[in-house]
Order: sequence, then C-alpha cells, then structure tokens
Amino acid sequence: MKRILYDLAGANPACRFSPYCWRIKLALAHKNLAYETIPWRFTEKAAIEFSGQGKVPVLVDGKNTIHDSQAIAEYLETTYPNEASLFGDPPAKALTYFIKNWTELSLHPAIVKVVLPDIYFTILDPKDQPYFRKTREAFQGMSIEAMAARRPEYLAVLQTALAPLRTTLSGQTFIAGAAPNYADHIVYGALRWAAMTSSTPLLEQEDPIAAWMQAILDTYDL
Amino acid sequence: MKRILYDLAGANPACRFSPYCWRIKLALAHKNLAYETIPWRFTEKAAIEFSGQGKVPVLVDGKNTIHDSQAIAEYLETTYPNEASLFGDPPAKALTYFIKNWTELSLHPAIVKVVLPDIYFTILDPKDQPYFRKTREAFQGMSIEAMAARRPEYLAVLQTALAPLRTTLSGQTFIAGAAPNYADHIVYGALRWAAMTSSTPLLEQEDPIAAWMQAILDTYDL
Repeated sequence: MKRILYDLAGANPACRFSPYCWRIKLALAHKNLAYETIPWRFTEKAAIEFSGQGKVPVLVDGKNTIHDSQAIAEYLETTYPNEASLFGDPPAKALTYFIKNWTELSLHPAIVKVVLPDIYFTILDPKDQPYFRKTREAFQGMSIEAMAARRPEYLAVLQTALAPLRTTLSGQTFIAGAAPNYADHIVYGALRWAAMTSSTPLLEQEDPIAAWMQAILDTYDL
Repeated sequence: MKRILYDLAGANPACRFSPYCWRIKLALAHKNLAYETIPWRFTEKAAIEFSGQGKVPVLVDGKNTIHDSQAIAEYLETTYPNEASLFGDPPAKALTYFIKNWTELSLHPAIVKVVLPDIYFTILDPKDQPYFRKTREAFQGMSIEAMAARRPEYLAVLQTALAPLRTTLSGQTFIAGAAPNYADHIVYGALRWAAMTSSTPLLEQEDPIAAWMQAILDTYDL
C-alpha cells in the first residue's frame, strides 16, 4: 500500500519547512510507517482539491485521504494500534512537568504584572509591604506604581497568555482530561491567585476557564 | 497524625492567595489527605526557619518537613501511593492537547514574527509570494517589511516564549520523558520550521533545546 504525504515546499523542492507537516513526518516515523512525500506550494490548490480543502499536510493512506495534522495523528493512532503509541501512558508525569514550567515561566509572569499592585495595596499585611515592595520592584525592574499605570497593556498580554489554556478547556473538562490531576492543580493555583487578588474580574462568565475553575471546586472539598 | 501546611496570607488571615500553596491544597484534596493550615506572611521567616529556608508552602507531615511545591507533590505521590495518583496514566493524551495548543497559540505566533520575512524573501517559490504576502499581511496586520524591521524585538519575545520548553528539557531528555511521543513531534515541528527558515541561528549550541532537537533526529530515521 502506498502512503503519500503532501508536504509544503519552498522554491527549493527539498526545503520542507511546514511545522504541521513536520509533526506528521515524525508521527509516521514513530509508528514506523513508510511514506513518500510530494512537494507542494501554497498556491497549488488544485493538486490537493481531492482532499476537499486547500492546506497541507494531506495524507493519502491507501484508499483513505486525511487532512489536518491533528486528524492525521488521531487517524494513525486508531488505524495502527499495534505500532508505538503517539499519546501513550508513561509520559503523563513528564508532560505535567512541561505544564508546570509553562505556568511558572509564561502564565505567572503575565498574571503578576496585572495583580502585583493590587496585592501590594489591598491584600498584604502592612508589615509585609516594605519587604514586598523591595523584592518585587527589584525583580520586575520597575516601581509598583509604574506597573499599575500599565495595567491595560498587561491585561491584554495576560489574555494572550491564557489562549492555550482556554482552547484546551473548550475541548475537554480538565487539563488532564475527564478528571483533574496535578496539572490542573498547578494551573488552578495560578488562576485562583489571580482571581483572589485582582481588583477587576479577569474572566468573562462564559469563559471555558471559568467553567473549569468551578468544576475544580465541584471536585474537591476545599 | 497531624498534617500542617504553612499557607501565605494577606492582612486578612482568611485571604490565602499563593498559587504554589493552592496547588498543594488541591493535591492534598486529590489524595483525600486531611490537613490544617497556618496563615503565614512574607516576613515571618522565623516561623518556618525549621524548614531550612524562608518560603511557603511548607508541609509538616508527622515527622517529615517538606518545602517547595514540586518536592511536596512528589513526596505526596511517593508517600501515599494508594491514594489517587497526581500524575497518573490516563491523561497523557489530554496533556498532549494542551501542548498542541501552547505550540499553536503561543510558540507559533512568536516564531512567525521572526521568520515570516525570511520565508517570504528567501524560501518561497516566487509564484507563491503574492499569495503569501496578501494572506500573511492581512493576518498579522502589518507589512512584511515592517515585521522585518522589528526582528530584534521579536527575537527577544521568542526567547521568552521558549522558556517553559527550555526548562523542561534541562530536566528530561524529551517532552514526553525518556522517549519522545506526539507532544515532542508537535513542538519539534515548530522548532524545525524556525531553524529551516530563520536567516540567523535561534539557539545557542549549548541550549537544551538544541540537544533535544538532535536527540529527536537520533531517534527517528528522517
């Protein structure tokens, strides 16, 4: 059976640079499935018209045609269950470690710029204020007042930082799937901190992140 | 046995706002472990001096004292193996979905601002250039030339966006742990795309991300 992948190319047909095609080439290699590629350029819509749309990757696997990298990955996992799993069990803890690092290195820094002035002015025990001001202003490289003045800008950055979480939670109830695990605990910590300290609401009521925060509270007796 | 968590508080002792303490309160609830909290303020270093350091969360579990949220989570998982797992097997695919969304909504946008002019000027088949310019300039809301002029700024944003990946790969060989899975494939696609199109190197030779990219190539026959 012939397996063919339409693969984005540059002027040089050997230059295959699409990130979505690369992930599928790796998934095919992971499952030890042989394939050939056909170089394809953005404007060659006619060449993949048979797939019913105009973007690559398109995989032709015998009589099956699949497009969209996520659909292709799930097709490969389902169709070739005896080959190495793409999503298998052992790595859950390792993946949680990535989520920890995302939370601490991308999400926390986006939240802190919004809520740090609120924490200073409305949350802290007065005896903590001098310590907090000194350590946080040194770390952030600006005064608490300067940070407060830039709040609208930081609110926009925070919404951008939340995009991966929001999209994930629009497709599944918890970060860990049908039930929460430590990945949810880590990220909930960040959002609860933000909700408890921010002087303005950070989430719309219909935001999937808000529904997930409620689902966490419904799960645990806190 | 008494279990005590030192928990960051504000002026109001009921205001417990630390994201790191929250993740541990959730982890304790997940494992159905009863505990009491002691409110703690930033400057009350003496109260937790017995832990050998000056930050919360600090968990006192019978005769064991543990600090640092990650160390506490791992301690709980090891010490209470019969309770619900914090990192257990089923969610691996769900966690991969988060990594997909992070790649597409945080990493790709950071990369594209750096490499889009390079793709246009040096990679594309000339017949694709008008299509590419029209679609990408509309999406990005600026001309390719304006994007090229801001490259230094976008390079700094990209390095910030890469921080969670870099830290993860400094602690484990692959995103999925000891062996790669589809989470690695997705992120490799993004980095390979960047490496193939950028007119300047994006990673230092000693960057853990560079070592991981080589480990992927050593794993798969591509």
